Amino acid sequence: MKLAIDAMGGDHAPKAVIQGVEKALLEYKDLEVILYGDEKEINKTLKENNRVTVHHTDEVISSDDSPVRAVRRKKNSSMVRAVQAVKDKEADACISAGNTGAYMTAGLLVVGRIKGIERPALSPMLPTLGGEGFLLLDVGANMDAKPAHLAQYATMGSIYMQKVRGIEEPRIGLLNVGSEAGKGNDLTKQVYAQLQALPVNFIGNVEARDLLSGAADVVICDGFSGNLVLKSIEGTAMSMFALLKAELTSSLKNKLAAGVLKPSFKQIKQKLDYSEYGGAGLFGLRAPVIKAHGSSDAQGIFSAIRQARTMHDENVVALITKEIKSNEE
Amino acid sequence: MKLAIDAMGGDHAPKAVIQGVEKALLEYKDLEVILYGDEKEINKTLKENNRVTVHHTDEVISSDDSPVRAVRRKKNSSMVRAVQAVKDKEADACISAGNTGAYMTAGLLVVGRIKGIERPALSPMLPTLGGEGFLLLDVGANMDAKPAHLAQYATMGSIYMQKVRGIEEPRIGLLNVGSEAGKGNDLTKQVYAQLQALPVNFIGNVEARDLLSGAADVVICDGFSGNLVLKSIEGTAMSMFALLKAELTSSLKNKLAAGVLKPSFKQIKQKLDYSEYGGAGLFGLRAPVIKAHGSSDAQGIFSAIRQARTMHDENVVALITKEIKSNEE
Repeated sequence: MKLAIDAMGGDHAPKAVIQGVEKALLEYKDLEVILYGDEKEINKTLKENNRVTVHHTDEVISSDDSPVRAVRRKKNSSMVRAVQAVKDKEADACISAGNTGAYMTAGLLVVGRIKGIERPALSPMLPTLGGEGFLLLDVGANMDAKPAHLAQYATMGSIYMQKVRGIEEPRIGLLNVGSEAGKGNDLTKQVYAQLQALPVNFIGNVEARDLLSGAADVVICDGFSGNLVLKSIEGTAMSMFALLKAELTSSLKNKLAAGVLKPSFKQIKQKLDYSEYGGAGLFGLRAPVIKAHGSSDAQGIFSAIRQARTMHDENVVALITKEIKSNEE
Repeated sequence: MKLAIDAMGGDHAPKAVIQGVEKALLEYKDLEVILYGDEKEINKTLKENNRVTVHHTDEVISSDDSPVRAVRRKKNSSMVRAVQAVKDKEADACISAGNTGAYMTAGLLVVGRIKGIERPALSPMLPTLGGEGFLLLDVGANMDAKPAHLAQYATMGSIYMQKVRGIEEPRIGLLNVGSEAGKGNDLTKQVYAQLQALPVNFIGNVEARDLLSGAADVVICDGFSGNLVLKSIEGTAMSMFALLKAELTSSLKNKLAAGVLKPSFKQIKQKLDYSEYGGAGLFGLRAPVIKAHGSSDAQGIFSAIRQARTMHDENVVALITKEIKSNEE
């Protein structure tokens, strides 16, 4: 497969991006990559490889850029060029770790929606204590979601988890404030029956408190709620690590004991680290458009590539297209 | 002041409730308490005290009871009787650690709203790393909030933090998915300008990721979002403690090192423990109605009593009434 990658996106670009690409090229012999970005910068890190093409770009979309304006005006940015390559059939899928809003806008405007999909959903995998992870969608592509949008998220999430994560009947949960049907706001009350009628394994409401324990394989919600939950989890984990660090270095005695426990703390950090799971897919588009985490290291980029490759090999987009069409008939 | 307390509510009732009451009676010489509950059960723990009256009740609202039905049918339950005492002016405020939905319903139906308040808000204090804590409202009284409701939350939260937590100009933040104005869903976009126009110290949007770092003193949101954030924070903290526990007891070496660090872990747990901050106020009612956490121990009940007492002494309800009236003129 051919993958278009924005080499300039993310906190550790282009170095981490290139290292991730090189790792993936070693692992996947069928992989070809087109890198978009500052050629000079890229060539500082990139080793000669006949499966990599570099396209020089001189515009950069920064994290402060306004999404729509950036995509419209910076057509020669590494990000927009990577997305455009998919539209032009030069690549099968694209990856960026850059400005999330701009990338979602580029995906939507350039690659475009699958016929019948009303709104794409930004869909990251989040960690669970057991290590399986769960898919949360939407986390911010669509702030004021309607019931029909959430029903489509359920279909897309179910197919993704089946094909990419190998779960036979993914458990689909509706993010809500209580477990009983009839709980929640107008949106969740309205969508509940629609979800029951879909040909997916809908297990009812799931509460935010139980997500990390693996309450569901796919958790669906409006983009505003999903974003809040994602960032609450991140913020709490970061705060607790900060508290731990402060306490464990507060005395020599503590430092010594903490030294013994270092591998354990590392283990915990790894369990909560979602770079292993790949990036966030922008589901509902005509090709896999994967957003790697802004802080991605080489491993994070590698995982995003693996994810894009599996989505491609498993024909996830075609399956979603078919299923959405059949649900509407 | 006179406080009506549901002795049967919460996981550790009535023992923890009575112990919390006794602690408060020692501390606050002006405090009188009316306890509602099973007299026999209560008398097993309660020491003779001429500032405590016990009213026997034989109905119990359980955590599974449907709120509205429970409040309507179980008029002789310890919870409804405690709330009724406030309505009948036999008590100045009430406290329960029981079924949250039923207690909110009882507060709304029996005590009633302040004139001009459209919707009450359930308002817990949450912990911050610095120890000041922040007020989050609403966390579930009003699932489909309108902009006008959120503006009233800002006014109520600001007065509460001034009077009860002693913060001169509480920083009011709007819970949102990004820091720039114009971010978010229809609700947050609409309320932003209204908040700017209010005579409170509105500091703009705050993100869920920054709450525990103390991004604002008062964080306002619709009840659905607030509930998700509250439970995401709780769930993540619980999950991390579970991971820590599993790792630290996984070998003898780890157990020994963890033993040294025990006081540190305890410190961290305490920092994240919000029973210290009191219960969740149901703001917007004609008297202080305080919901103690379901898992409250004696200290949690004590904190809720202290909170009810300060709200009473500082005339928080009268100040909210006045301010809401003046904002409408």
